[in-house]
Amino acid sequence: MSGSFEQRLGDLGEQRIQREVLQPRYGGTEGFGDDSAFLAKVDTPSELVATTDSCPTPVVNILREPDLFHAGWLLATINLSDLAAAGAEPLGLVVNYTLPKTTTVREFERLLDGVDACCHEHGTKVAGGDIRDGAGQLTATAIGRCAPGSRLRRSGAKAGDRLLLVGSPGYLWAAALLETGRATLPAAARDEIWQRACRPTAQLKAGQLLAGYARAAMDVSDGLFATVRTLGEANGLGAAVTGEFELDEPLAEVAAQCGLRPFDLAQTWGDWGLVAVVRTEDVKVVEKTLRAESVAVQEIGTLTEDKRLTEGTAPWRGIAQERFSASSWHGGELSTLLTEVLGV
Amino acid sequence: MSGSFEQRLGDLGEQRIQREVLQPRYGGTEGFGDDSAFLAKVDTPSELVATTDSCPTPVVNILREPDLFHAGWLLATINLSDLAAAGAEPLGLVVNYTLPKTTTVREFERLLDGVDACCHEHGTKVAGGDIRDGAGQLTATAIGRCAPGSRLRRSGAKAGDRLLLVGSPGYLWAAALLETGRATLPAAARDEIWQRACRPTAQLKAGQLLAGYARAAMDVSDGLFATVRTLGEANGLGAAVTGEFELDEPLAEVAAQCGLRPFDLAQTWGDWGLVAVVRTEDVKVVEKTLRAESVAVQEIGTLTEDKRLTEGTAPWRGIAQERFSASSWHGGELSTLLTEVLGV
Repeated sequence: MSGSFEQRLGDLGEQRIQREVLQPRYGGTEGFGDDSAFLAKVDTPSELVATTDSCPTPVVNILREPDLFHAGWLLATINLSDLAAAGAEPLGLVVNYTLPKTTTVREFERLLDGVDACCHEHGTKVAGGDIRDGAGQLTATAIGRCAPGSRLRRSGAKAGDRLLLVGSPGYLWAAALLETGRATLPAAARDEIWQRACRPTAQLKAGQLLAGYARAAMDVSDGLFATVRTLGEANGLGAAVTGEFELDEPLAEVAAQCGLRPFDLAQTWGDWGLVAVVRTEDVKVVEKTLRAESVAVQEIGTLTEDKRLTEGTAPWRGIAQERFSASSWHGGELSTLLTEVLGV
Repeated sequence: MSGSFEQRLGDLGEQRIQREVLQPRYGGTEGFGDDSAFLAKVDTPSELVATTDSCPTPVVNILREPDLFHAGWLLATINLSDLAAAGAEPLGLVVNYTLPKTTTVREFERLLDGVDACCHEHGTKVAGGDIRDGAGQLTATAIGRCAPGSRLRRSGAKAGDRLLLVGSPGYLWAAALLETGRATLPAAARDEIWQRACRPTAQLKAGQLLAGYARAAMDVSDGLFATVRTLGEANGLGAAVTGEFELDEPLAEVAAQCGLRPFDLAQTWGDWGLVAVVRTEDVKVVEKTLRAESVAVQEIGTLTEDKRLTEGTAPWRGIAQERFSASSWHGGELSTLLTEVLGV
């Protein structure tokens, strides 16, 4: 391939892309090149689930020089995160790339590197896919299995159940605060935050541990407020959050420098945590089980008969992004969004 | 909903689209609204397959007033057709729509009607999906299961194996010839061709019947030539086609009026047939089995040690469309393509 990385996909054409880029990478995958990708052989009774999501422009690609690696990584994570919310084990990912003809082989390889690295990190793989030319769009579908009866849903919760936030929120938006000069940290801490922001992971292990314990679950794709509100609506309930949250140490420092409460940063998105709904009597054992597997978890509140969303004694004024609206993140500018979202 | 069909998705916003359009239609589907869609419970050992494809602009939407119903129908068919080529039984479809904010509710409902009608026709359903605003793109993923060991692949064929064309080719391009005035037929015949062109079906039943009999299979998505060439390449073989084909009666008439041989029209795409590779000794029983289920099938040639593609005694000069190239259909104009493809 040496010397050909600067070639454009439109110069190669579909057959050479297949032969020179995809075959060397995926040729060993059973089913490569067939009309349908092979996911897995399943021998035990299973509930099968699937989820599909397209990748927005990664925030990190706005903060620094864009790299399709990050888009590829994010594409896999956002889909695997939905499997995590179902408590499912992933069987594979199928990808669907629409790319401009002007995309270079180097850029394309970075995209594939990102998706493959993320899949590897999560113990799964790209099983197959499709590619076509057009305005850029990256879509994937993740397929998974659950043991019968263990599948987590948004519904199934009762008033009084506790809300657990699984994962470590705040890395992406802390990175944004650091990159835009709103906070400063020593280089090592800043680098670590940047790396975490570039490589968010799905809570697959946590989801599988929660299956059977949790009454409901949902991933945090549009921020904590939107997630809790949706979980409440799915169960005809409201929620009371405490507004307290212990951020990872360097994030707490970033928040403090920006005059933000830890809970403000904990409400942001991009870190692909889960909100799990757990019976009061199960909270301790769930927390212990997750922490034993090095999964971060904190109780953040309670589902309530009262359909309002409250933080402490006041209405919870959270952040929510909505598609097909003027405030849609997908149409937003980082500079204004940081102010809108975090008031800084 | 009365009176609101002319509203635009951008005026509704994501939440109202969910509540007013998607919930009434899909609210009864288990898993609707969850992070992951529920596909099926599988109780017997299975090989699971998946395929993903985006929908090009349907040719019928260029020939007459565009209707998103046709795009929805086609989106489902092209994905189910890949399952058919694997001999799989469909478990469900997950859809991923990127639509402009200016899309009206009426247009969106037509799209959903088309996908749902096609899924129903094929005995499957939309299990879930995602929607976002942006430049229009319709993508879907179909997931299916095969009995262990029965899954059809492109590879597995031997020289001397016979090529069977399953399905009735030529409807889409006959419609194009009729609509552009290159041929004329009585209204009833013309209507029937138009209907078939608008509602191509995937050969799911045929694929499942072929599983276990056929040595290899592939669907005809880019024309017969490209399909046979790819099947040959996947097996290190060439092919000798006879160049003879018996079209359905009204299509034969269209071909004749245009000075085309039946085999010319049989080489076009858009009708989602399969090419199945079958051992010589199995041809009769396969043909009988398929015809007993009202599936059209004709032998078209033989795979050969000689890697060339021949038609009769001459090289086969077929039609192939290739993505990421100047001749890509997705960038083509119907008026020039009819001439390029069929020479008329």
